[in-house]
Amino acid sequence: MNNRLEQIQRYMDHQKLDAVIITSPRHVYYLTGFNSDPHERFLGLVIPHGDEPVLITPELDRQAASQASSVQKIVTHTDTQNPYEVLKSTLPSSLRQVGIEKGHLTVNRYEQLKAAIGAEVFLDMEALLQEMRSVKTSEEVQRIKHAIRLVEDVLREGLKKVQVGVTEIEIVAELEYQMKKLGAQGPSFETMVLAGEKSALPHGKPDHRPIKEGEFLLFDLGVYADGYISDITRTFAVGRVTQRMASMYEAVLAANRAGIDATKPGVTFASIDQQAREAIAERGYGEYFIHRLGHGMGLETHEYPSVHGENQDIAKTGNVFTIEPGVYIPEVGGVRIEDDVLVTDNGCEVLTTFPKELKIIG
Amino acid sequence: MNNRLEQIQRYMDHQKLDAVIITSPRHVYYLTGFNSDPHERFLGLVIPHGDEPVLITPELDRQAASQASSVQKIVTHTDTQNPYEVLKSTLPSSLRQVGIEKGHLTVNRYEQLKAAIGAEVFLDMEALLQEMRSVKTSEEVQRIKHAIRLVEDVLREGLKKVQVGVTEIEIVAELEYQMKKLGAQGPSFETMVLAGEKSALPHGKPDHRPIKEGEFLLFDLGVYADGYISDITRTFAVGRVTQRMASMYEAVLAANRAGIDATKPGVTFASIDQQAREAIAERGYGEYFIHRLGHGMGLETHEYPSVHGENQDIAKTGNVFTIEPGVYIPEVGGVRIEDDVLVTDNGCEVLTTFPKELKIIG
Repeated sequence: MNNRLEQIQRYMDHQKLDAVIITSPRHVYYLTGFNSDPHERFLGLVIPHGDEPVLITPELDRQAASQASSVQKIVTHTDTQNPYEVLKSTLPSSLRQVGIEKGHLTVNRYEQLKAAIGAEVFLDMEALLQEMRSVKTSEEVQRIKHAIRLVEDVLREGLKKVQVGVTEIEIVAELEYQMKKLGAQGPSFETMVLAGEKSALPHGKPDHRPIKEGEFLLFDLGVYADGYISDITRTFAVGRVTQRMASMYEAVLAANRAGIDATKPGVTFASIDQQAREAIAERGYGEYFIHRLGHGMGLETHEYPSVHGENQDIAKTGNVFTIEPGVYIPEVGGVRIEDDVLVTDNGCEVLTTFPKELKIIG
Repeated sequence: MNNRLEQIQRYMDHQKLDAVIITSPRHVYYLTGFNSDPHERFLGLVIPHGDEPVLITPELDRQAASQASSVQKIVTHTDTQNPYEVLKSTLPSSLRQVGIEKGHLTVNRYEQLKAAIGAEVFLDMEALLQEMRSVKTSEEVQRIKHAIRLVEDVLREGLKKVQVGVTEIEIVAELEYQMKKLGAQGPSFETMVLAGEKSALPHGKPDHRPIKEGEFLLFDLGVYADGYISDITRTFAVGRVTQRMASMYEAVLAANRAGIDATKPGVTFASIDQQAREAIAERGYGEYFIHRLGHGMGLETHEYPSVHGENQDIAKTGNVFTIEPGVYIPEVGGVRIEDDVLVTDNGCEVLTTFPKELKIIG
C-alpha cells in the first residue's frame, strides 16, 4: 500500500471510520495514479478499515485502470449494472462510520450510496485530503515544473504576436493554440490578456480591445499537463510607459521579491503576505493592492493554503503556492507579477523562471 | 412572472411543494436570464409557493444580475455573510416540502441548506427541468442557430489548414483558435479531429499523428456562445479513397437522411433511431454502427432526449437533437455525419447547413 493510503488508514484508526469512499476523479488519481474522466459514470476508491483498497471503475476503463493504478484490486461495472450494488459488494456488511467527499458527492449520489451501504454516520474527508495534498512529493514537484516549463514556452511564443493593434482576444487564441501545440492538455483556467486600463481589473475579461502604445499588457495563464497545473502572471510595457507606471512596476516587483524572501518553513502564511504588502505600502501604493498574496496549487489551480493576512497556518517544506502581488490603479492600469514557489528546508525555490524586469514589447 | 416560472408554480401546486430552490448556474440562467459563474460562492433562485421569486447572488454580481435577470427581486450576500442565512430570510418560516437540484447540490451544501431552512422533505427538480428544457422557444432556437453558424465558420476556416503531414492536434488548435477569434466563448466539448484508422474510434483522442493521403479525416466539434451550444460532425476524404470507403460513406449519409426523414412530432425516438439504423444495415454495415443515433442539446451538449432504440418517448415540436449515425471499421476507419435538427409542426428543420456530400480535401 502506498504512503498516502497508509496515511488515510491512520486517520481511519483515529476517527473510528469503518471505510472511506473516494469519488472525485482528482483524488482517485492522487491516491492510485489512475487519472480519468468517468463523465456521468461511477468511479470510486473504496478503502475498508485495515483491509485492501478496491478501485471501482466503469468496465470500459478496466484496461487503462489496471495499467495506471497502484491499487491492484479493480472491480468494474457495466452500464446496465447498479454501481452502488457493486460498491456494496466491496464493503463489510456492517458499517457505522464512513468517510466520503461531501464537497464532491451530489445529493443524488449520496442518497443512492447511503441506501446501498447502510452506514449511519458520514464524515467529510476534505480537510485531510487538502492537508495531505499541500505537501508535495518530489514527483509532484517535477510534474508542476513540467507544466511551468510548458506555460513559459507558451508565453514566449505568444509574445511574438504582440504588436500595436492586435486585440486581447487574438493573443489569448494564440496562447491557447500554443498550449495545444506544445503538448499541454489545455489551459488550467481562463487565459487572461488585459491591455491598458483593463489591466487594472483583477478579474477582467479579454475582448476585442486592441493594444495601444504606452500601456501595460498583463498576461495571466496556466496549463494543465499530466494532472498538474501551472500559473504565471507577467506584465509588460507596450512601448514606453510613464514614470509613474514604471514606479508602480517597481513596487510590485519589490513585493514579489519580498514575498519570496519571506518564504521558508516555520513562518505563517500571514507573515509572507505582510512582507510583500509592506513593500508595496512603503512605495506609496498600499491602497491599490486589493487581493491576497497567493494560493496553493498543484492538482488544482486554487488549493490549500491561501496566502493572506489572516492565515496563521505555518508554511512547511513541500508546500507549493503562488506569490502574486499586484497594484491596480483605475483608469491607469494594473501590474501583477506572479511566481510559483516551493518551500524547501532552507527557504524556497522559485519554480517559475520567466524574467521579471520591466520589458518593453510590441 | 415568466412562463417558465409559472410552469414551476403549477408543478409546486401539484406536488405540494412549499418552495423550490434552484442552485445550478445553468438553470438560474434558464429561469431568469442571468448567466454567471459564481465559482465557490452561493447562487440561488428561490421560488416560494404562490409568491414572488427571489434571486440570491454574491454582492459583486449585483449589477450584472439586475441588468440581466427577469426576476426583479435580488438579494445579495458578501463573502463574510452566511449565504444560507440569507436564503432562510427569503423563505416562509415553516416549510415542509422543498424542491432542490439533487444532481447539482453537493452534500456539503445540502447539509448547510437543510440546517438553515429546516424543511423535512426534499424532492428533486431535475425531471421537470429536463422536460421543460427539451421544448425550445424560438429565442432558444435562434441562439442555437447562432452557435451553429459560428461552428460552421470555424470548420470552414479549419479546413484551410488541412494538408498531408499536418497533425490532428495542430488542426484542433487551429479550430479552437478560430472559435475564440470568431467570437464564441469556447468549445462546448473536446474538439475531435481523427485521421485514418483513428477515425474508427468514436471516443478517440487527437494527438501528433500526421494526416496521410487516402484516409478519412473526421471532425466533431461545437462551440458555446451566449449560453447555448452547437455540435457538428463531418468526415472528409484526404485525397482519393477506396471504393469500400466511399460505400461506407454513402451508407452513413443515407442513414443521416433517413433519420432526418423520420423526424416529426408524434413518433418515438426509438423509431427515428431504427429508421437510420436500417439504412446502414441494408447497405451491409449494420454491425459497425455501435452507438445511439443522437442526443438532445441546447444549454448542454448532452441533454434530454436520448435518441436510441429503447426510448419510447414521443418527439414534440420544439425538440432539438443531433442525428449522428456512424460506421466504424477497425483498421480501416470511421465515418460519422452529424446534424442538429429541430422538430417542427410538419417534420423537422435541419439547423446545420454544412454540405454533406463526400468531399476530397488536403
